[in-house]
Amino acid sequence: MATATAPPKDLSMVKKDAHPFERAQLEGLMTKRFFYTQAFEIYGGVAGLYDYGPSGAALQANIISHWRNHFIIEEDMLELDTTIMTLSDVLKTSGHVDKFSDWMVKDLKSGDIYRADHMVENVLEARLKGDEEARMKEAGAAASSASPAPADDKKSKKKAKSVAVKLDDNVAKEYRHVLAQIDDFGGAQLHDLIKKYDIRAPATGNEVSEPTEFNLMFESSIGPTGQTKGFLRPETAQGHFVNFERLLDFNNGRVPFASAQIGKSFRNEISPRAGLLRVREFTMAEIEHFVDPENKSHPRFHEVESLVLPFLPAHVQKAGETTISKMTLGEAVSSGMVDNQTLGYFLGRIFLFLEAIGINPERLRFRQHMDNEMAHYASDCWDTEIHTSYGWIECVGCADRSAFDLTMHSQRTKHDLMVQEPLKEPKVYQKYVPTINKKVLGPFFKKNAKVIEDTILSMGQECLRKMQNDLESSGKAPLQANNETFEVTKEHVQIEYKTIKESVRNFIPNVIEPSFGLGRIFYALLEHSFWAREEDKERGVLSLPPLVAPFKVLIVPISSNEQLSPMARDISKKLRSLNIASRIDDSNATIGRRYARNDELGTPFACTIDFASVSKGTITLRERDTTLQRIGTVDQVIDVVARLCSGRLDWNGACQILPAYTGTQDIEAEK
Amino acid sequence: MATATAPPKDLSMVKKDAHPFERAQLEGLMTKRFFYTQAFEIYGGVAGLYDYGPSGAALQANIISHWRNHFIIEEDMLELDTTIMTLSDVLKTSGHVDKFSDWMVKDLKSGDIYRADHMVENVLEARLKGDEEARMKEAGAAASSASPAPADDKKSKKKAKSVAVKLDDNVAKEYRHVLAQIDDFGGAQLHDLIKKYDIRAPATGNEVSEPTEFNLMFESSIGPTGQTKGFLRPETAQGHFVNFERLLDFNNGRVPFASAQIGKSFRNEISPRAGLLRVREFTMAEIEHFVDPENKSHPRFHEVESLVLPFLPAHVQKAGETTISKMTLGEAVSSGMVDNQTLGYFLGRIFLFLEAIGINPERLRFRQHMDNEMAHYASDCWDTEIHTSYGWIECVGCADRSAFDLTMHSQRTKHDLMVQEPLKEPKVYQKYVPTINKKVLGPFFKKNAKVIEDTILSMGQECLRKMQNDLESSGKAPLQANNETFEVTKEHVQIEYKTIKESVRNFIPNVIEPSFGLGRIFYALLEHSFWAREEDKERGVLSLPPLVAPFKVLIVPISSNEQLSPMARDISKKLRSLNIASRIDDSNATIGRRYARNDELGTPFACTIDFASVSKGTITLRERDTTLQRIGTVDQVIDVVARLCSGRLDWNGACQILPAYTGTQDIEAEK
Repeated sequence: MATATAPPKDLSMVKKDAHPFERAQLEGLMTKRFFYTQAFEIYGGVAGLYDYGPSGAALQANIISHWRNHFIIEEDMLELDTTIMTLSDVLKTSGHVDKFSDWMVKDLKSGDIYRADHMVENVLEARLKGDEEARMKEAGAAASSASPAPADDKKSKKKAKSVAVKLDDNVAKEYRHVLAQIDDFGGAQLHDLIKKYDIRAPATGNEVSEPTEFNLMFESSIGPTGQTKGFLRPETAQGHFVNFERLLDFNNGRVPFASAQIGKSFRNEISPRAGLLRVREFTMAEIEHFVDPENKSHPRFHEVESLVLPFLPAHVQKAGETTISKMTLGEAVSSGMVDNQTLGYFLGRIFLFLEAIGINPERLRFRQHMDNEMAHYASDCWDTEIHTSYGWIECVGCADRSAFDLTMHSQRTKHDLMVQEPLKEPKVYQKYVPTINKKVLGPFFKKNAKVIEDTILSMGQECLRKMQNDLESSGKAPLQANNETFEVTKEHVQIEYKTIKESVRNFIPNVIEPSFGLGRIFYALLEHSFWAREEDKERGVLSLPPLVAPFKVLIVPISSNEQLSPMARDISKKLRSLNIASRIDDSNATIGRRYARNDELGTPFACTIDFASVSKGTITLRERDTTLQRIGTVDQVIDVVARLCSGRLDWNGACQILPAYTGTQDIEAEK
Repeated sequence: MATATAPPKDLSMVKKDAHPFERAQLEGLMTKRFFYTQAFEIYGGVAGLYDYGPSGAALQANIISHWRNHFIIEEDMLELDTTIMTLSDVLKTSGHVDKFSDWMVKDLKSGDIYRADHMVENVLEARLKGDEEARMKEAGAAASSASPAPADDKKSKKKAKSVAVKLDDNVAKEYRHVLAQIDDFGGAQLHDLIKKYDIRAPATGNEVSEPTEFNLMFESSIGPTGQTKGFLRPETAQGHFVNFERLLDFNNGRVPFASAQIGKSFRNEISPRAGLLRVREFTMAEIEHFVDPENKSHPRFHEVESLVLPFLPAHVQKAGETTISKMTLGEAVSSGMVDNQTLGYFLGRIFLFLEAIGINPERLRFRQHMDNEMAHYASDCWDTEIHTSYGWIECVGCADRSAFDLTMHSQRTKHDLMVQEPLKEPKVYQKYVPTINKKVLGPFFKKNAKVIEDTILSMGQECLRKMQNDLESSGKAPLQANNETFEVTKEHVQIEYKTIKESVRNFIPNVIEPSFGLGRIFYALLEHSFWAREEDKERGVLSLPPLVAPFKVLIVPISSNEQLSPMARDISKKLRSLNIASRIDDSNATIGRRYARNDELGTPFACTIDFASVSKGTITLRERDTTLQRIGTVDQVIDVVARLCSGRLDWNGACQILPAYTGTQDIEAEK
C-alpha cells in the first residue's frame, strides 16, 4: 500500500493522489506516542471527547505560546480569562439559547439520530462516488484502481456506503450543486432534499423524521436551589462583551483595542465525527477587536497588503462552484470583496501565523460565508479552511460581528456599552427640537397621550419642520399615531430650531472577531507534517517546525555505558537553562530505533554522545528530515541548537558552522 | 482609618494588628485596575464566578508559567490536558458521585440555604466575639477599641452578627474546642451541635432543618439522547488515572514518574463566600506522582531535608489546639510525623514555589488532616495553609492517595493498571498451589461448585497446607463456604508444593498528589503584596516580585512631546524581543500619577524618557518599592532590567552598575 514518502521539503508540492496519505497510520502513531487518545478509553470512550498526552499537550502548548506572541504580545491585546459556566440570561441575549442549534433527524424505526445536513451530504457524496465507480467500470478501467475506502469507514456504522450505480448526468450535476451549498440550508430545505432525493438512514435504509432543532449547548444549574440556569460557553466571545466597560476603561476609554482569550469551549454535537475535527470540548483562541464603525481602516494594513491569498467568495459558491481566486489582500479589500482593512489585516495575520507553525500554505483557503450560513450576529465572515484527508475544514473564522452583541447586552442590562470620543472640533449644527407640554397634552389626549408623545419625540427632522410650519401658520397640526389622526396645538407642543454644540461623539463599537479552533489546527498540522521514509514505510516522521515541536532535542548516549551518563545530564541541564525542551533516551534500543522513535515525536534535532565525546568533548547533531549529522564541541552544538530553535538560523546556516560528521567508527561499534 | 504602610521589605514582619489590612481597599484596586471582577457583573453577577482581566490574567499566567518550570520542567513530569466533561461512570468509580458533597441546612421558614459547617462556625465565632466585647466592657475598656467589623459584613446578609453577651468560661472553651475540629464533623454531629447550642439561621433567627447532603458536582448530559450522564470534573486527578496505562507506556513502563495538569475544575458550592477563596469554577494544578508502595523514598529528598517548616499535626488539632511546631523536613519524616520522603519532598518543593512567587513564608503552615476530614481516598494528607484576612486558607493539598484510585478503576474496567517490574534476581520460593478438577467438582457440587472453587482459590498458604495434609492422610478434607461445611476429595482438587520462579513483580503504584488551588494562591499573594505609602494612603502598592508581576516595565515619556515617542517605541520593541512585558503610559497625567497607577499594577520598574534622553541617550530606571531612580544609557538600563527580571540580579546589584539619578531638572520642568 502506498504511503506519503516524499521528503518534507516537497510535502507542500505533494499531490494527494500521487502519495495517498494513510490516516490510519497517523492515528496509530497518535495513540502509540500519546499525542492524544479518546477520553475515558478504558471505560469504552465517549464520542467527541479527547485527552492530550505529553506529546500532544506540549505541541498544543507551543502552538498556544506562538499564538500569544504573534497576536497578544505583538499587538498589545488585553488578555482575559472568563468563566466557562455562563449565566443563561447572557446567552439568551446573545441569541444562543434560541438559535445555537443544528438540525437533527431520527431513524423512524431504530431511533438512531443523525445530524441532518451531514446525513444529506454523506448520502449524496456516496452516490456520486458510486456513479464514478460505475463510469470507471463502463470505461473498462480496472475496478481495483478505484480509490480505497477511507480507513475509518469500518468504525463508522452510520456512514453511507457507495454502491457502483451510474447517475443521470443532470442528477449528478444537481447533487454537486447541492453539496456546494450544503452549509446554506435550513431545516425546511433539508427536509425537501431528503424527500426529493429519497434520502434514508445510512445504517438501516429506514425513513427519517422531519428535521428538528437541537440546541448545542451543555446545560447545568448553578447553586443548590436549581433556580439559576447556566450553560457551558459555546465560545469565549460573550465573556469579552460582558466585560466591555472594564476593558474600555483599562484602555483609557479609547478604541480601537482588542481583547483576547484562550480557553475551553463546549458544543454538545449531535454526532461527533472525524476525530479531533468535530468534538464536544475544545480549546479556542478568540480575539475581539473593537473598532469605530465609521473607520475600519487599520494602521498596520500596509504590512500585509501585498500578501497573495487564495479566496473563495460567496458569489462563486452560490453559483455552485468552488474555484479559488488568488489575489493580494490589497486588491481583495480595495475591490470590496473583503469588507474592510481590519478584516483584511486579520486574514493576513492568520495566514502568517498558520504558515509559521507549519501549515502547508498550498492547502489553505479563505472561504466567505453565504448569507444563510452566516452566524446570526455577523455582517461579513471569512473562514480560513485547511485541507485535510477529511476535505476542507474550517479552522479559523474571521467575522465582522458589527455592533450586534454590545447593542443587545446594552438593551438588556441598561448599561451603556458605548465609546465616548471627545471631538477635536465641537460639532455645531442646527436642528428642530420638540418640547412637550405634558400638563396640557396628558389630560387632553388621556389614554392616547403616551403614544402621541412617543410619536413626536421619534419624528425625523423633515416631519418636525413641517409640524413647526403648521403650528406657526395655523396654531395646530395633524399627527398620525396608532393608525388614527390626531390634531395637536401650540399648547401641546412647541418646536424650536436650535443650535446644538456637541463635544463628544457616542457610539457602540463594531467588533471584528478572529476565532481559532486550536484542536482543528493541531490536527491539520499533524496531517501536513506526517510522512514516511521510503526505506522505513512502517514508521512515520512528523516534520514539525522547531517552533512548535513538543521536544526540540533528543539526547542519545550511544550505549548505556556509565561513562556517558554525566555528559547526557550536563547537556540536558544546559538546554533546560536555555528553556529548550529535551529528552534523554538512554534505553537499550539501537541508536537507529531511538532516532526513529523520536522522528515519530517530531523532535527536530538529536545530540549523540559517543566515546569520542568523552575523550574529545565533541558531540554530533542530527537533523530529523535529512538525517544528516554534523559535529562540534558541546558548547558549539548547543549554541547552534539554540539559534535553530529560536529561528535565528536554518539548517543550511548550521552546516556552515558545524562540519559534517564522518567518523562513524564509534557509532558502528556500538550498534 | 489605619492602613498597612510598612515598606514591603518589612511586610513579612508586620503584625496584622499593628497595621490593620483593609480588605475593601484591596478589593477596590482589584476591580479598578481589572485584576478580576465578579462574572456577569452587568447582569447582576453570579456568586462564586469570577472573570480575570488583563492584569489578573497576566499575573495568573506568570504564576502558571513558574509552576510549569518549577515542577513540570524541573522534574520531567508528563503534562496532560484531559477533558473537563467527565463520564459519570468514572466519577462513580472514584467515589465522587456518592461522597463528594457538603452538608446543607434550610431555614425552615424562609427557605434560605446554608452550608451547615459554615453556619455553625459562623455563629459560634460571633458568640465568642460577643463574649470578648462583653468582657472588654466589663474591664472598662473603651468600647470603640473593639476590632471593627470586617468590611464585607455589610454585603453578606447571611452573616451572623456579634452581640456583646458574656459566655460562661466553660462554654467559651467548649466553643473554641468545637471550632478547632470543625472540619472533622459529619452531618449527624453537626445536627447535634445545632441542637445543643441552639444554632439558628443567622439572617432570620429561624430554626433550620436537619443537615442533608448536597453533591457538589455540576451535572449535564452528553449527546442528543440525554442517556449519557456527565459531570464537570471536580478535580483534574481522574483524567490522570484513566490514562495511567498510556502514561506508564510513555515512560517505558517504569515508576516513579509524575503526570501534571493545569486546568479548570468546578464545584457547585452551596454558598460561595470570601471572594476568590471559595468559588464554583477555578484553575487547579495537579501532580500525580506514581510510586512503588514499598519504596516511597525520593532521590532528591536531600535537597530539601534541611528546610525548616511550620507544621500543625493532626494530634495537636484533635486536642483542640493550633500550636505550630517548627522543624526540618528531615526530622518531620524521620520521626514518622510526615509519612514518607516523597510526601516530604513535595512539601519542601511547595514551600519553595510559594516563597519564589512572593508568598510571605511567615504566614504559611502545613496542617495535617484529621481522620474524618481526610478525603475518602487518602491515607495521609497535609494542607499548605496561607494566612489571609479571612484566616488560614487551604491553598495546596498534598495527599497520599495510596493505590485507591487505580485499584478502583482497575476493578471496574477490568484493565490491569499495574506496573511490571523486572526483578534483577528472579524470586524463587515454594508454595502450595491448588488445581481444581472442574469436570468432577462441577457435577458433584452443582450450584455450590462455583463458591467452593472460589473459596479454594482464595485460600491462604496455611489453609492449603492443612488441606493438603488432610487429603494426603484421609483422601478428603472439610471446607467452610457460604456458612456450610462441605467435604472435598482428591478427585475434586489436588494440592502441590511447587517451586515458583518469578522474574517480574506486579504492583499497583501508590499516588502522592500535590494539588494546587491557583486562584487561592493568587488571592493570598495579592494580600501579602499589598500596602500603601505613608504619604499616599489612598493608593495601594502591590509589591509583586518581577517573576510574576503582570507587567515588568512601565515606559514613561516625561511629556507628550512628539520628540519622545520614537524612543518609547524603541525601548518597547527592545524589551519585547527579550520577552519582557512592558506598557507605555503616554497619557497626559502627571509623572507622579503615572508612577502611582503602575504601583497599583505591581509593575516593578519604570523607564523614564526626558529631553536629556533625546540629547544624551540616557534614561532613568525607577524601582517601585523604594521609588529610587538610577540612570544609564538605553542599552545599559535594558540589560540591567533583563537581569533583574530573570532573577540574575537584585536591586542592590543594579545600584552597583547604574549611578543614582540626581539631575531632576528636566522632570521638574515638566510636572
